[in-house]
Amino acid sequence: MTAGPGVIDLNADLGESFGAWRLGDDEALLAIVTSANIACGFHAGDPLTIRRACAGAVAHRVSIGAQVSYRDLAGFGRRAMDVPAGELTAELLYQVAALDGIARAEGGRASYVKPHGALYHRVAADPVQAAALAAAISAYDPGLALLTLPDGEAARAAAAAGLTVVAEGFADRAYRADGTLVPRGQPGAVITDPDLAAAQAAGIATGHAVLAADGQDVKVSIRSLCVHCDTPGAVTLARTVREALERSGVLVAPFA
Amino acid sequence: MTAGPGVIDLNADLGESFGAWRLGDDEALLAIVTSANIACGFHAGDPLTIRRACAGAVAHRVSIGAQVSYRDLAGFGRRAMDVPAGELTAELLYQVAALDGIARAEGGRASYVKPHGALYHRVAADPVQAAALAAAISAYDPGLALLTLPDGEAARAAAAAGLTVVAEGFADRAYRADGTLVPRGQPGAVITDPDLAAAQAAGIATGHAVLAADGQDVKVSIRSLCVHCDTPGAVTLARTVREALERSGVLVAPFA
Amino acid sequence: MTAGPGVIDLNADLGESFGAWRLGDDEALLAIVTSANIACGFHAGDPLTIRRACAGAVAHRVSIGAQVSYRDLAGFGRRAMDVPAGELTAELLYQVAALDGIARAEGGRASYVKPHGALYHRVAADPVQAAALAAAISAYDPGLALLTLPDGEAARAAAAAGLTVVAEGFADRAYRADGTLVPRGQPGAVITDPDLAAAQAAGIATGHAVLAADGQDVKVSIRSLCVHCDTPGAVTLARTVREALERSGVLVAPFA
Amino acid sequence: MTAGPGVIDLNADLGESFGAWRLGDDEALLAIVTSANIACGFHAGDPLTIRRACAGAVAHRVSIGAQVSYRDLAGFGRRAMDVPAGELTAELLYQVAALDGIARAEGGRASYVKPHGALYHRVAADPVQAAALAAAISAYDPGLALLTLPDGEAARAAAAAGLTVVAEGFADRAYRADGTLVPRGQPGAVITDPDLAAAQAAGIATGHAVLAADGQDVKVSIRSLCVHCDTPGAVTLARTVREALERSGVLVAPFA
Repeated sequence: MTAGPGVIDLNADLGESFGAWRLGDDEALLAIVTSANIACGFHAGDPLTIRRACAGAVAHRVSIGAQVSYRDLAGFGRRAMDVPAGELTAELLYQVAALDGIARAEGGRASYVKPHGALYHRVAADPVQAAALAAAISAYDPGLALLTLPDGEAARAAAAAGLTVVAEGFADRAYRADGTLVPRGQPGAVITDPDLAAAQAAGIATGHAVLAADGQDVKVSIRSLCVHCDTPGAVTLARTVREALERSGVLVAPFA
Repeated sequence: MTAGPGVIDLNADLGESFGAWRLGDDEALLAIVTSANIACGFHAGDPLTIRRACAGAVAHRVSIGAQVSYRDLAGFGRRAMDVPAGELTAELLYQVAALDGIARAEGGRASYVKPHGALYHRVAADPVQAAALAAAISAYDPGLALLTLPDGEAARAAAAAGLTVVAEGFADRAYRADGTLVPRGQPGAVITDPDLAAAQAAGIATGHAVLAADGQDVKVSIRSLCVHCDTPGAVTLARTVREALERSGVLVAPFA
Repeated sequence: MTAGPGVIDLNADLGESFGAWRLGDDEALLAIVTSANIACGFHAGDPLTIRRACAGAVAHRVSIGAQVSYRDLAGFGRRAMDVPAGELTAELLYQVAALDGIARAEGGRASYVKPHGALYHRVAADPVQAAALAAAISAYDPGLALLTLPDGEAARAAAAAGLTVVAEGFADRAYRADGTLVPRGQPGAVITDPDLAAAQAAGIATGHAVLAADGQDVKVSIRSLCVHCDTPGAVTLARTVREALERSGVLVAPFA
Repeated sequence: MTAGPGVIDLNADLGESFGAWRLGDDEALLAIVTSANIACGFHAGDPLTIRRACAGAVAHRVSIGAQVSYRDLAGFGRRAMDVPAGELTAELLYQVAALDGIARAEGGRASYVKPHGALYHRVAADPVQAAALAAAISAYDPGLALLTLPDGEAARAAAAAGLTVVAEGFADRAYRADGTLVPRGQPGAVITDPDLAAAQAAGIATGHAVLAADGQDVKVSIRSLCVHCDTPGAVTLARTVREALERSGVLVAPFA
């Protein structure tokens, strides 16, 4: 990607309420993002919440992705699990099918898969679980893209399976000079100032280098930017990022 | 249906294992029945079990049905629940979508829906839950049939929604003169002798009257016979029933 | 209870978060109420949340109650279930034991049981489930009180089992002339104005009649007042009620 | 332990049914073993099953242990999970409390804790999860013993916390010369011949060396022998082991 206005997708997690418990502001985010990673019931997302999120995405012409997870409601999918490959493939296939079927009932369809939480990180590093994820997508519909970190095992396994891989970056996470993220828990890992996040987003989307945490420049080549949704200022940050992108001449549009 | 050899479907519940727990003999039943009501994960059926059951059904050319349930693993779906209609529709839609998607990944597809356990009985009597079930089927695919008791609220709601309704009867349950079943728990409610069950099945399938529990004759007009699968002698009984049907000249074939 | 300053307990539901999902403001409520109905994991309350709620209750010298429920996380325990009596007793016994054990690990102990949601209403009307609840309490510790509506099946079954029954009323729910509550969903069923709720609370606690929804006076004889915790203004309402009680000369103190 | 008749405990997993799913033959095992590791509901064991297992253990004068697990019904607790320490401690505390409370309601009490499945292996190697387990036991009752592998992190953490540690060995698993087990999946890892298992059990219990898989002798110093319960021949194997122990003059008696 050379410097200059480009096209970028904005994705966020939706449908993460469960029964009586509310999480995130789906309605507000649907007016901002272009892709919705909708929970599939294993870490969050009861069926009625999923259905409403799908209906909202269709109404807002937002792309729908299956945000698949380990089966772990109590841990919100944030606890890595050693799930055997065959079991994992079946669990992910089940989730993609459920989500896509509900999306179709609402007049849309799932166009991509994004792993959630501990699974997201595990498949970036573990070739066995990565292959299990790719197998689930291939089994359901090889036309579904995988939205993930660039250069991880998940991207490799999906590419090897002939799937479309879409790389994502982060407006609100600090990068290191090697293009990887500063781990959560380290100082400065999360960017909470909406203007700083917006500046980083615009820099990435226009092909400029981003200032890494160690002061070096780093080029981040991605097609989608993830904005988080589970913090108090999430909606404001997402809106600020989108406005900055549009001011920079970037076309904010779904990849799928 | 006039007396004489007819055509009948044999259905049984499959995919009701869960994780380490085994229930039923899916492989043996697939060689006998023509329709498999496959659990969808809410009362039984982990995703790998479901996937294997779907693959087996496809291999045996057995029709696949979504055996939907209340969300109740601990009670095996046998405890009636007052689920609000919108919630129930979404829960059933989720299950049908998950099952159908896995079936498609295995080269088949769901062709009907059969409610399980407490839901089966509730939708026969409760018009609100019956309508919620019909709404779920309509939302997912109005081409899916509903397999249920004749003359109940579920049949009425499905017919009103324009769905195909397939009536089922039982080889191993005693009937009353009004065509309803002798309630479980009453003496003689369950027929455990394979030969008696086979005789009742053949009688029903050839359009003859069945001897009701009170000694009267009763005509049972159905297109599918359910054989239970969770008892020690289930496979033997199912096989005996099928053989008796074929000896009577009845064509044993799926309805879907 | 004759008119005049009395003694009253204030109870509220606590520990109703689950994993990543937050519900209620436990810390704020612990400074106001005298009894905490702590969720036991079946409708809400992961173990860490329960442990923190117990530790907080001990620190604030607030009585601890086991807020038992049907097993229904997805429905927050608000969906009535037909659970056979033996199963229900075991499920309730399990919850009381888990909660009391955690309370003891934090230096406290459970001193009462309060059913939650759909179970609360079911045991008020269904003698079988009411007896199952009383059996669970008796099996665990006959010294535990039951906190419930006056005059229902639960109160009767508990009294018959020799348990202490503590009647509760509501500051923020309108009463009918016969002493029962105006059902939710009817106009005026819920009192949202803190001052009106406080006035009703003070009236009840001082033995005065309360103005029923139909304009008549009604006497409500209870030992504990429930303040809800799951609405935006819950903490403010609870604090206003407590202040009004104290201004009226009522001693706000736990019953246990 | 010098060679010669000693005293040994026989432990087995019980209460591992869940709802409609049966696993193991609790009644038969209670007549053979001296300690019952009763599931606590997180990997198996619905409350009614737990209650019956506790009642059976009390009736047979069998010691009761809390068989604690990760929260993983779908994986039967066999999938390792990265549970943060505070969360894990609370989850284990919850399980121990529930089990002990039910045991007390049946006239018994829990006298030890044994981790199940993936947790069993994880706490043998991971000092953080091992400490979380020890913390849970200490918080509930420091008088509870920990039944575990000799020489692992769990044993170390429990000893450091002042808990009683009871080492266990296996009649039906092959040992290596260093005293560790041949990993499952390797040839000869599991001993299925009851007579060979009985011979190994008697050898261990009388202080003789056991023939390791590589042909060397190995001394196994343990106070309890685990007999598995989830295989078709489990009861026969357990009975054969017990008879061989008694024929060798070993006293089969609980440690607690």
